[in-house]
Amino acid sequence: MAVGLSTPGVLHPVKGVRLAAAHCGLKADAGVKDLTLLALDADARVAGVFTQSHFCAAPVTVCRQHLRETPQSRFLLINSGNANAATGDQGLQDALDCCAEVAAMAGVEVNRVLPFSTGVIAEPLNTKVIRKAIPDLFERLRDDAWLDAAEGIMTTDTLPKAASVQLEIDGHCVSISGMAKGSGMIKPNMATMLAYVATDAEIEASELQQMLQEAVAGSFNSISVDGDTSTNDACMLIATGRSGLRVSSANTEFVEALNGLFRQLAQAIIRDAEGATKFVEVRVRGAVDDDDARSVAFTIAESPLVKTALFASDPNWGRLIMAIGRAPVSRIDTGCVDVWLGSVRLLHQGLPDPDYSEAAGQAEMSKQEITIHVDLGLGAGDARIWTSDLSYDYVKINAEYRS
Amino acid sequence: MAVGLSTPGVLHPVKGVRLAAAHCGLKADAGVKDLTLLALDADARVAGVFTQSHFCAAPVTVCRQHLRETPQSRFLLINSGNANAATGDQGLQDALDCCAEVAAMAGVEVNRVLPFSTGVIAEPLNTKVIRKAIPDLFERLRDDAWLDAAEGIMTTDTLPKAASVQLEIDGHCVSISGMAKGSGMIKPNMATMLAYVATDAEIEASELQQMLQEAVAGSFNSISVDGDTSTNDACMLIATGRSGLRVSSANTEFVEALNGLFRQLAQAIIRDAEGATKFVEVRVRGAVDDDDARSVAFTIAESPLVKTALFASDPNWGRLIMAIGRAPVSRIDTGCVDVWLGSVRLLHQGLPDPDYSEAAGQAEMSKQEITIHVDLGLGAGDARIWTSDLSYDYVKINAEYRS
Repeated sequence: MAVGLSTPGVLHPVKGVRLAAAHCGLKADAGVKDLTLLALDADARVAGVFTQSHFCAAPVTVCRQHLRETPQSRFLLINSGNANAATGDQGLQDALDCCAEVAAMAGVEVNRVLPFSTGVIAEPLNTKVIRKAIPDLFERLRDDAWLDAAEGIMTTDTLPKAASVQLEIDGHCVSISGMAKGSGMIKPNMATMLAYVATDAEIEASELQQMLQEAVAGSFNSISVDGDTSTNDACMLIATGRSGLRVSSANTEFVEALNGLFRQLAQAIIRDAEGATKFVEVRVRGAVDDDDARSVAFTIAESPLVKTALFASDPNWGRLIMAIGRAPVSRIDTGCVDVWLGSVRLLHQGLPDPDYSEAAGQAEMSKQEITIHVDLGLGAGDARIWTSDLSYDYVKINAEYRS
Repeated sequence: MAVGLSTPGVLHPVKGVRLAAAHCGLKADAGVKDLTLLALDADARVAGVFTQSHFCAAPVTVCRQHLRETPQSRFLLINSGNANAATGDQGLQDALDCCAEVAAMAGVEVNRVLPFSTGVIAEPLNTKVIRKAIPDLFERLRDDAWLDAAEGIMTTDTLPKAASVQLEIDGHCVSISGMAKGSGMIKPNMATMLAYVATDAEIEASELQQMLQEAVAGSFNSISVDGDTSTNDACMLIATGRSGLRVSSANTEFVEALNGLFRQLAQAIIRDAEGATKFVEVRVRGAVDDDDARSVAFTIAESPLVKTALFASDPNWGRLIMAIGRAPVSRIDTGCVDVWLGSVRLLHQGLPDPDYSEAAGQAEMSKQEITIHVDLGLGAGDARIWTSDLSYDYVKINAEYRS
């Protein structure tokens, strides 16, 4: 049911990054991969952003701690099928035990290994099957296994999500490749459930963290399926330096390519959102500031009544008015508000546009890809976010998730 | 599909209040009432609370203005089928024209008439059919027509919602009767879509407003179907004084009866929520303050993932953890959190309760009426709110609303 999303195209290897994925036994179906390992060369730098959930999962706590100790991570171990969340001290120990197994195998310190988990919450992690599968993963590490890895981190995703770009900068060929997973419980408050992007450019650690935060703001922090935020969200940016090119945030060509790739991965999550039949961009401008613009955009994007109208392809735009009206912002002057559906203006200065016709609205709403554009007419605040509709299948997928 | 809700029982007349409802033609079906008139005796006092939507409807603006000019309203005119919202200056004029028609008929000033509308947003109000129906409504005003009136204000409601109580205080028989409508677009930010409660006690105007605000806090402001707030919400409290008893907020017997009646009407809206198969109470205590408790409670109540699990009767309580974790409050100490489903404890001090069994959780989730109880273990903050589940029928009703 994914909207305008297909299997990823060419995924360029990133020098200094090798990957492998396998079935270890966390998921019932033996044909489905549930454990993924990324191995980084010794000079790589890693930056991360994580869920803001009060109930963050054990691997998130361990990741944060290991990254505080050193940005020179050597391995990322990701299991799907179990979130290792709400598992207390035992959960922390389990995450550390998995890291220790990888560390011992490679002869590195345990804080060079970052653990990630995604899946069911509040169930103990079966570390036995994970540890048993690690030697095999080590043997199978390859630099061209991005698609395997993207499959390895999937849960309710219907398609693997990955993207890749190569740039020629100052005579160096630089690659950026990335993957992400997630289709429900998606309103990342830092990152989507899990996303990993790597480049072989050389980037200094604090610069890397800054670049990641900026890329995330316009991508994973600008999407919402259902307003729900996971306990396990993590987004990692890796720079191996192996291309021989050093870049900083002043390199606009690189930064734009990086931001574009992040946006592509974030949009892939919305295109594959649980039950999605529409891919919707909500653009709000003219707000007092960017925060207000984001607030109005998310209120529209997360309104169940707007989402069901989108599913029905019903240009019932009174619901857009309703959502704008309840947005938690200090100031809206209804007499200044314009609203468009695609290129069709619905509302002009707070009143129905006299040129609007139901047929024109219907034509826009019937599309698979829809843009809702609001101009509040007050200031320079601007935001652009992406969301999906609320369908029978969203209810079905989430009502039957564990049955 | 209403959960534990049936047609209202005995509705006591309130001395000084007469009502009538009829079909005027705003709704297509000739058998369905869409216009309601309440007539109040000359000494009555009226207090109101209204939607906080930036896009509040024309009748809300007119009501606020008329009440500012005098609390001694004489008539309330309510149409269902058209919200008269996002209709600009014409909408204001239309609302005033309807008031003027009633005022002329009764020989009172126009600001003694309060207008209310509920229905489709952003369509012009057909005042012609309303004005034409008014003389007939005047002829049919009766003090025992509360049920007729409750039917007259319905839109997607499956049952009329009304409640009534009589008290014996200081030798006086005092009646309180009320009605409400609403089943979707329900997270009143002041009141539900429309609610009217009248008593024949005598209550001073500023006291009446205070009593209304307190009653609303624990009733209409403590419910949510879908987190969406209407442009037309209004809740009115009328005191006619005709029982001969004067009461103030110091009269706890009266205040408790009033608050109980408000709560009953608010809960009736949740029981009749669009597509509801469950009636859910969310109680949060132990928060730093009441605001935090409400914030956690509404985050749980409005989480699509919690709501679909409720629909599926699935004790997938990792989703409760997720929702608590993403609640926008400054402080949660996960090691202090206890969570119950009915009498079954799921989480104790942030960890799965060792005595919990899936069978016990399943038994609680299979009930039609469910209580989710969270103790944050931090302070004295407390909140109790009511909500419904998210079912296929919610999507169906809202996808097909205009088709």
